[in-house]
Amino acid sequence: MGTSVADYRRSIRALLAPLAQREPVVRPLERALGLALARDLAAPLSLPPFDNSQMDGFAVQSGDFGARHEGSVRQFAVAKPIPAGAAPVPLGVGQAAPIMTGAMLPAGADAVVPVERAQPPRFPDATELSDHARVVLPAAEPGSYVRRAGSDVAAGDVVLAAGARLGPAQLGLAAALGLTEVPVRAPLRVAVISTGAELAASGQPLLPGQIYDSNGTLLVAALHEAGIEARATAVRSDDPDALRAVLADCAESADLLVTTGGVSKGAFEATKLALADADVEFVHLAMQPGGPQGIGTVAGVPFLGFPGNPVSCWVSWEVLLRPVLAELLGSPAARPRLRLPLADPLDSPSGKLQVRRARLGDDGRVSLVGGPGSHLLGALAASDALVLAPEDVTELDAGADVEVWLL
Amino acid sequence: MGTSVADYRRSIRALLAPLAQREPVVRPLERALGLALARDLAAPLSLPPFDNSQMDGFAVQSGDFGARHEGSVRQFAVAKPIPAGAAPVPLGVGQAAPIMTGAMLPAGADAVVPVERAQPPRFPDATELSDHARVVLPAAEPGSYVRRAGSDVAAGDVVLAAGARLGPAQLGLAAALGLTEVPVRAPLRVAVISTGAELAASGQPLLPGQIYDSNGTLLVAALHEAGIEARATAVRSDDPDALRAVLADCAESADLLVTTGGVSKGAFEATKLALADADVEFVHLAMQPGGPQGIGTVAGVPFLGFPGNPVSCWVSWEVLLRPVLAELLGSPAARPRLRLPLADPLDSPSGKLQVRRARLGDDGRVSLVGGPGSHLLGALAASDALVLAPEDVTELDAGADVEVWLL
Repeated sequence: MGTSVADYRRSIRALLAPLAQREPVVRPLERALGLALARDLAAPLSLPPFDNSQMDGFAVQSGDFGARHEGSVRQFAVAKPIPAGAAPVPLGVGQAAPIMTGAMLPAGADAVVPVERAQPPRFPDATELSDHARVVLPAAEPGSYVRRAGSDVAAGDVVLAAGARLGPAQLGLAAALGLTEVPVRAPLRVAVISTGAELAASGQPLLPGQIYDSNGTLLVAALHEAGIEARATAVRSDDPDALRAVLADCAESADLLVTTGGVSKGAFEATKLALADADVEFVHLAMQPGGPQGIGTVAGVPFLGFPGNPVSCWVSWEVLLRPVLAELLGSPAARPRLRLPLADPLDSPSGKLQVRRARLGDDGRVSLVGGPGSHLLGALAASDALVLAPEDVTELDAGADVEVWLL
Repeated sequence: MGTSVADYRRSIRALLAPLAQREPVVRPLERALGLALARDLAAPLSLPPFDNSQMDGFAVQSGDFGARHEGSVRQFAVAKPIPAGAAPVPLGVGQAAPIMTGAMLPAGADAVVPVERAQPPRFPDATELSDHARVVLPAAEPGSYVRRAGSDVAAGDVVLAAGARLGPAQLGLAAALGLTEVPVRAPLRVAVISTGAELAASGQPLLPGQIYDSNGTLLVAALHEAGIEARATAVRSDDPDALRAVLADCAESADLLVTTGGVSKGAFEATKLALADADVEFVHLAMQPGGPQGIGTVAGVPFLGFPGNPVSCWVSWEVLLRPVLAELLGSPAARPRLRLPLADPLDSPSGKLQVRRARLGDDGRVSLVGGPGSHLLGALAASDALVLAPEDVTELDAGADVEVWLL
């Protein structure tokens, strides 16, 4: 039934493994979104950097309450307020300092009493402060409403591992640690080359038998969304020389060459013909759609030959290439994978991984969108999930759990 | 217990509703990724544009087989092969034309027999063709292995509705329909202004009581990832005049102003003080974290005041602003929402929506990451999901289903 998808992913991984060894580049945080960290990131400081207040309240020394019992309170002299950002003076015995959320706990304090539990339940104004204001507070446990230094991140901890994808939270963390730049794996540069004598030039009227190329737009957009640099070229003929020339040209500035079309069993398979003497193998995968595939190197650059039908080409990206890049390079992120119940029954060819387009419903079930046909681009555009029916499955009833990848 | 999240989202929606009325802009497909379509898109042509072959095989007229029965076959004269992209000549009676996947079905043909079912099971070569080659084919049903014109998309159909987010599949569909540009809603321009006397300038050493600003980096990256134009500014003081000046400046070129910090109940709330006379309301939401919020207009521009803790600020984006933009403008996409079992028990404050950071496990359960604290940025960076415990929930056992948003 053809090469298994798992085996083929291993072949792609072996082909692309050298890409993980490229020299890291340093990027300012604002230009690192979606890239993968090149090295483990150890925290240069703790977060929080110092003990600070979790609430607007009064900083106190819990020992000042003496022996605590249910309902015990004590009157304190109100010290100088501590706004966030200030370096506070040490707290005297019997003092309580108004302290704002995030402000540094003064030396001598070990707890915070929220302002709404004080009597009176507010901060004294300037006049009251200058007039030796007092406040009555309920007893506090040591550490209450205090965010301890290092309670989120301890200095020296590896907070992000090499290969971690830098999304908003990871970049925010780097900024909180005082970093302004990070070492990242350089984004891949992929050349996408659509092939086929049937491709009309965009903007020109269709002649009989012609279609507009959608694979270039589809794949380049998918790669861009995944944080990969990509550029589309079309070879609108079945002329092997024309394709070889374009491949040679693209190989000069790309880390990966991806063609679409010309890898099947027909009589005019341009990609197969063009690469007959290259270090490229053409295989048939046990996958529907996306069975015919090419893999190898062209002019020393890794090469993948995707099939020409738009859904096959896109499934090849999602199910074959993307998971390998996620595992090997850390970016793009792998798709979230779940097991969810089918809203509809499903037939699947024996011995092949069937990949169907689907929508996640409000009821948590997945509905198939369109049929299995690899030309159903309209249905693809209406889907937000993939359903993967494994090789040994030939039919599933509505309600059966199935593997779902969310797009 | 404060304003409900649902009510507050309605307020944000009302505030931002005029943004949906802006004049659409026309973008080439390669610059439309992640934007929302401004108008319904009707297909200018059908997909496929013409009847074509689903397989490499022989195009035949099914009527040529006469009465079909189990195992019936017939010999055909082999006509000129039809590659993809060619305008085929009509098929004569008793002829079978070699036809490649995607190639146009010739007039007179209504079915395709896959080449592997032919005798011999291959295409004749040039010599055989010039020598009046013949082929024996099994009977075919009308329409078999034919992709009918319009079977994916019929000309005139609305294939994408106004507001549809243009991802790779949607752009690929537009390309297949021959479009080179699309009318889109212009990306929002958001000014993010971090406030607080505790903020150290990035790249400078921390003084006691200071922290590095992470909110600017975090929010701007989140907005960029959502296809929104955003720029960060920091006001590193509690001086209301400084903040007012920055807001006035940003209002000149932004569709939305977002501040972080200074909206709580402390004694030095810069945002509250700066906007005391503005058309801005400060409220407390029944949500943890992210309770204190500001909403209104500043210099005629919509304004949202997010709280200053990084997790609170980010949750405000994810749970309050992003869903409203998704619904109102179509872009960014709403987060996928599921009900999944908890790996851990959960406590939640009565009367508040609790938003916890979590990870989706291989077993389909969600594990909480870090505690509920709004300062836990390290934990946020390790999460890939949100768990939302509704207002009326105070505790959930491990295994209980809970609302999960996948990030």
